[in-house]
Amino acid sequence: MSLITLTTDFGTKDHFIGAMKGAIYTELNDARVVDISHQITPFNITETAYILKNAYKKFPKGSIHIIDVDSELSIENKHIAIALDGHYFICANNGIISMISSEIKPDKVVEINIHNSLSSFSAFVKVACHIARGGTLEVIGKPIADIKQINEVQPYINTENNQIIGSVIYIDNYGNVITNITRKLFHEIGKSRPFEVKARNYTFKKVLNRYNEIINFESTKELRDYDGQKLALFNSSDYLEIAIYKSNLKSVGGASTLLGLDYRDSITVRFL
Amino acid sequence: MSLITLTTDFGTKDHFIGAMKGAIYTELNDARVVDISHQITPFNITETAYILKNAYKKFPKGSIHIIDVDSELSIENKHIAIALDGHYFICANNGIISMISSEIKPDKVVEINIHNSLSSFSAFVKVACHIARGGTLEVIGKPIADIKQINEVQPYINTENNQIIGSVIYIDNYGNVITNITRKLFHEIGKSRPFEVKARNYTFKKVLNRYNEIINFESTKELRDYDGQKLALFNSSDYLEIAIYKSNLKSVGGASTLLGLDYRDSITVRFL
Amino acid sequence: MSLITLTTDFGTKDHFIGAMKGAIYTELNDARVVDISHQITPFNITETAYILKNAYKKFPKGSIHIIDVDSELSIENKHIAIALDGHYFICANNGIISMISSEIKPDKVVEINIHNSLSSFSAFVKVACHIARGGTLEVIGKPIADIKQINEVQPYINTENNQIIGSVIYIDNYGNVITNITRKLFHEIGKSRPFEVKARNYTFKKVLNRYNEIINFESTKELRDYDGQKLALFNSSDYLEIAIYKSNLKSVGGASTLLGLDYRDSITVRFL
Repeated sequence: MSLITLTTDFGTKDHFIGAMKGAIYTELNDARVVDISHQITPFNITETAYILKNAYKKFPKGSIHIIDVDSELSIENKHIAIALDGHYFICANNGIISMISSEIKPDKVVEINIHNSLSSFSAFVKVACHIARGGTLEVIGKPIADIKQINEVQPYINTENNQIIGSVIYIDNYGNVITNITRKLFHEIGKSRPFEVKARNYTFKKVLNRYNEIINFESTKELRDYDGQKLALFNSSDYLEIAIYKSNLKSVGGASTLLGLDYRDSITVRFL
Repeated sequence: MSLITLTTDFGTKDHFIGAMKGAIYTELNDARVVDISHQITPFNITETAYILKNAYKKFPKGSIHIIDVDSELSIENKHIAIALDGHYFICANNGIISMISSEIKPDKVVEINIHNSLSSFSAFVKVACHIARGGTLEVIGKPIADIKQINEVQPYINTENNQIIGSVIYIDNYGNVITNITRKLFHEIGKSRPFEVKARNYTFKKVLNRYNEIINFESTKELRDYDGQKLALFNSSDYLEIAIYKSNLKSVGGASTLLGLDYRDSITVRFL
Repeated sequence: MSLITLTTDFGTKDHFIGAMKGAIYTELNDARVVDISHQITPFNITETAYILKNAYKKFPKGSIHIIDVDSELSIENKHIAIALDGHYFICANNGIISMISSEIKPDKVVEINIHNSLSSFSAFVKVACHIARGGTLEVIGKPIADIKQINEVQPYINTENNQIIGSVIYIDNYGNVITNITRKLFHEIGKSRPFEVKARNYTFKKVLNRYNEIINFESTKELRDYDGQKLALFNSSDYLEIAIYKSNLKSVGGASTLLGLDYRDSITVRFL
């Protein structure tokens, strides 16, 4: 039996998540439902795109991903089901899977047309259970050629090819600030040249691969007080991230609060 | 195997939820446990009643719902198990299922008497596993005739039958403010008369059925800036709700913060 | 099939938890994964130790506990797998299971050596799935004799044996303040002598066994206004706790806010 994952901006207090799981189990008694995130900032497409891109590929092929963010049905916000990279995605056609589909072409996209009197919620559940039972996309929608793309997830490269202007697309649980600059793009443009990463008034001349690379393990423990140090690294998702070593948003603060970086703020890489 | 759902005010940081699930799996190896909510405001019976009412009915018949909110055992706060609408509920006799039982009569209620040296926690788990194995309520308690009702969930109707004075019973993840006025009551009293919904200084002359009904899709996109607009609607649970279109409590605010509406504040419908 | 539990400081917004579950299901299709907590204060070893100690023992023997808090691999922070009390623990060697291992000797500890190019995350998942399939610890690591202990979880006893100086190790969802003084230690040192518990400027001469012991159920309801009363009790985990009856951090406040008690503040028991 396929896994069904849930990614929403519903929060975990309200009854919505429980109700959605109940509806799935009612339709498909032996379903297996896994939460990805319900704490997406309300209506935030970019956050959703980042979370989804980094979570989905760890799941087994054949998994079915319900993404219920900004999905109220309208003539301008249709619902779609997508087969891509061996996975299925059910969501509104609002750009939410742009970060995935810009790298991997969908095998099939259909516009869901089984709503009639069903709510969005019920339609998503119905489509997911249909696919989990082995049903095809054609049965629940009509094929369409294109899906909506969002552009704010793409960094800008200058004509001299020596500067990448990226922006903050995600702030994580530790206050680490994640940009839309991938390791791949960084190396393609940089071609091993020296560089400066600029975030607000701070400049980084190294990009680490692990947080604790900042520590000199050969110095005595007394000489090391790295907690609270600023650093730039490629994170485990291969995006350029500005972080504070062992940060904590509730006490010492994180990169977002200490460096004053927020969603959409720009981070620049200049190659010398 | 029946599903066992959990609704508590334990929060998700402490060990309590993990411990409860562990105890269930220890007693019933192949149990299936589903979270409804653990973020109930501590000891808040009305919130619990609203969440439970809207979540339970989506689950398959035969599901067993543990509700652990304000459940410390005392001579005035006994534990009960209830069979109602094909579902089972295990909770303290503190009014928590009033919103359900005021509409659907329980088939059976027992006062749980298997505590001896068991904590509330362990007793709830034991009863749930007993029912999941097909056990009857009589084995774990003695039948009682009545359960406690809470009244603050009922709106007031004036003698002229042209006014409903409701109150705020729930504020959701988006800051939307939910009243205790149902669509059914609204229509029974209103009988299609024109009306005004008053919340603080704001008056609404329409009650929508979907959030995006507020948008005129025929106007150009430039002319539409509906984000942040106030509206009244019957929500997906058929309760009268005051909302802000695409609200976000952490940035632009929600109906609760922007209109200054809090738990128990009154919302009035006047029929003209 | 064994249960695999997760205890982390990842929070529930980011993709990490979803990704970890996806990785487990990819490796072990019929795995059963249960969350203990993902809301640990970032890098807080003591909090983790307290939560883990109170949760793990409720799970069935054979359960596998992944604890991913402060686990970035370094020459000073190796990863270990432990067999103890019929359970398995996978974590960094950073003191996180001190509160358990100080009471129950581990049966076996190995330093995990399967990383090669694996991230911490992937190594933890791989080890958990290996154990779940019935694999032995020796296959994934080399036996070591000792694990790191943290001492701040131990209270201090004066030489006259009439005073225990404990400290706050945990603040729960209700704002209740939990000390490192166990019921067992209290009785061993106290030997039924009268006592005073001092927390800030407050003195408690009784330690209750349930929150509602503070209520005199024989007085009329009008005379009882116990909500908001301070009390000391042994909590359900048998630790000395300072609490407020029916507290709520977001409205009336809890013991932590009302008495001004924070992590590591001292709480003293003096026997008379």
